[in-house]
Amino acid sequence: MPLSEFALIDRYFRNCGVKRADVRLGVGDDAALLDSPAGCDLVAAIDTLVDGVHFPHGCPAASVGHRVLAVNLSDLAAMGARPAWALLALTLPNTDEAWLSEFAAGFSDLARAHDVALVGGDTTSGPLCATVQVLGHVPRAQALLRSGAQPGDLLFVSGTPGDAAAGLAVEQGRLTASEDAVSYLRKRFLYPSPRMALGKCLRGFASACIDVSDGLLGDAGKLAHASGCGVELGYRDLSLSEALVETVGDARARELALTGGDDYELCFTVHPDNVGKLRHELPPERWGYSLIGKIRATPGAIVTDGGNVMDFSHSGYDHFGT
Amino acid sequence: MPLSEFALIDRYFRNCGVKRADVRLGVGDDAALLDSPAGCDLVAAIDTLVDGVHFPHGCPAASVGHRVLAVNLSDLAAMGARPAWALLALTLPNTDEAWLSEFAAGFSDLARAHDVALVGGDTTSGPLCATVQVLGHVPRAQALLRSGAQPGDLLFVSGTPGDAAAGLAVEQGRLTASEDAVSYLRKRFLYPSPRMALGKCLRGFASACIDVSDGLLGDAGKLAHASGCGVELGYRDLSLSEALVETVGDARARELALTGGDDYELCFTVHPDNVGKLRHELPPERWGYSLIGKIRATPGAIVTDGGNVMDFSHSGYDHFGT
Repeated sequence: MPLSEFALIDRYFRNCGVKRADVRLGVGDDAALLDSPAGCDLVAAIDTLVDGVHFPHGCPAASVGHRVLAVNLSDLAAMGARPAWALLALTLPNTDEAWLSEFAAGFSDLARAHDVALVGGDTTSGPLCATVQVLGHVPRAQALLRSGAQPGDLLFVSGTPGDAAAGLAVEQGRLTASEDAVSYLRKRFLYPSPRMALGKCLRGFASACIDVSDGLLGDAGKLAHASGCGVELGYRDLSLSEALVETVGDARARELALTGGDDYELCFTVHPDNVGKLRHELPPERWGYSLIGKIRATPGAIVTDGGNVMDFSHSGYDHFGT
Repeated sequence: MPLSEFALIDRYFRNCGVKRADVRLGVGDDAALLDSPAGCDLVAAIDTLVDGVHFPHGCPAASVGHRVLAVNLSDLAAMGARPAWALLALTLPNTDEAWLSEFAAGFSDLARAHDVALVGGDTTSGPLCATVQVLGHVPRAQALLRSGAQPGDLLFVSGTPGDAAAGLAVEQGRLTASEDAVSYLRKRFLYPSPRMALGKCLRGFASACIDVSDGLLGDAGKLAHASGCGVELGYRDLSLSEALVETVGDARARELALTGGDDYELCFTVHPDNVGKLRHELPPERWGYSLIGKIRATPGAIVTDGGNVMDFSHSGYDHFGT
């Protein structure tokens, strides 16, 4: 006998994530009551994952639960914000309890890792689709925006972009790899790590920041555009994982790093005067970011290799693109 | 040529709803930055509408835009909260610009009526499905909860429940009615009016409150259950619209009022000592609510007619019910 919606919410989502003292009323009433701290801006993001669009049909339920929270946390990381609360809208074709239990565990594990309480939700029947809304805080006037970059600012990215796109291809059976590489790349797609600590520490350093979800080149272009500038990325400066290069070769790895999606890394700019302090206080080898380019006055996003401009016509993932 | 996701967001959603001074940063960055007022609790609700589940396939786009905001506003009304900001996650099978334009207009008109700013969103491709998250405020410790009712409290409901269920049946061609009744009932389903002013004014009067979305009997039962009580509804005390009775007859009208969904009215309880003041300050004939029952100590939700308990086995809409 299927669980009713109310029993379902109760069983899987009432104790999801952490308990927080600033939740006056969580799951179970018409709405949640939350206590926002003084001196902070409230930061709000929303993102949806659709079966067969944002993850392959048959993807592990724990990954779907993890990713739908991770993509939202990544948006907060890009603002330099500290997450606090999440609301979940889950649409399911049926009540498969094993699936739900795994989904809730994947969601809850990541929520616990980042001190997030699930405070509200809605479960409905329909095609498999999950929407999460995350709320957090950032000290007033300290949020990292996309729009603060200036020509001459240096461009950095965390991690090794391109891994997740290869991991998705592995997951879909479109790409073969060594056992170790399969394990690493799949994990990079299925369980991305939102860069919360880095985002928070970049306050005061970064002039602009964006999370890399639709492909590094396109997202760096969006940051530059929001700042009224352009951006140049160095083809040879991209930081690549060994697993990616071993699996797809150097040229394809660089292409995936530039145009693959689902990285959930942070791309940020720093004024040249602040780079020394950044490297001292946040050592790149420990924080895992690298210099990949610079902001320029001329609009557009270009990739250069030894002075030559390269062509990457697919400049990022667009759900409705041609 | 289809609009890209970014152009689409820009064209239809950047100026949706009102502009508010407390929005530091709206649509267009990784997340929104919002300024919560001091002395208030933040109130957060999330709700999804799925094509073919929550509205019939082919439903006017303006209605879908209106309803996905209305169902969330209704949750805030039930808390006695004042809405401020909304985030929208919209999943679309294609970029039908006429549909999008109507959807945005339906959403925006209701947002403007209730001083709501659209501050963030996500548009993705997939089966038609819209999720809205609404944020609002209520003075600290003044929120209306489901859990505050006590045996002896009187039970009220706003409006005329049952109309929306009949309106849906009309919309789906399952029910015929006179021209005037068709117009009235369809509107009650397609364009529900969230009871924001009533919710706000019930602060200090209502001991408990819930919004009626899944059927009055079931929702009154949820309120009673959350309060550790039961509830008795008077079959003859239900307030019915003339259009509903004219269209389906008295008995079916009462059944729809008790078990139909999508009313988005407020069901609330008031201690007997406060009923005189309630009626004086919020005259029922002006505010459109009526006395329909009372809270009792015995658990469960019953309907009585002249002392006899009636059977309504379908006690509300449950998306996963048997």
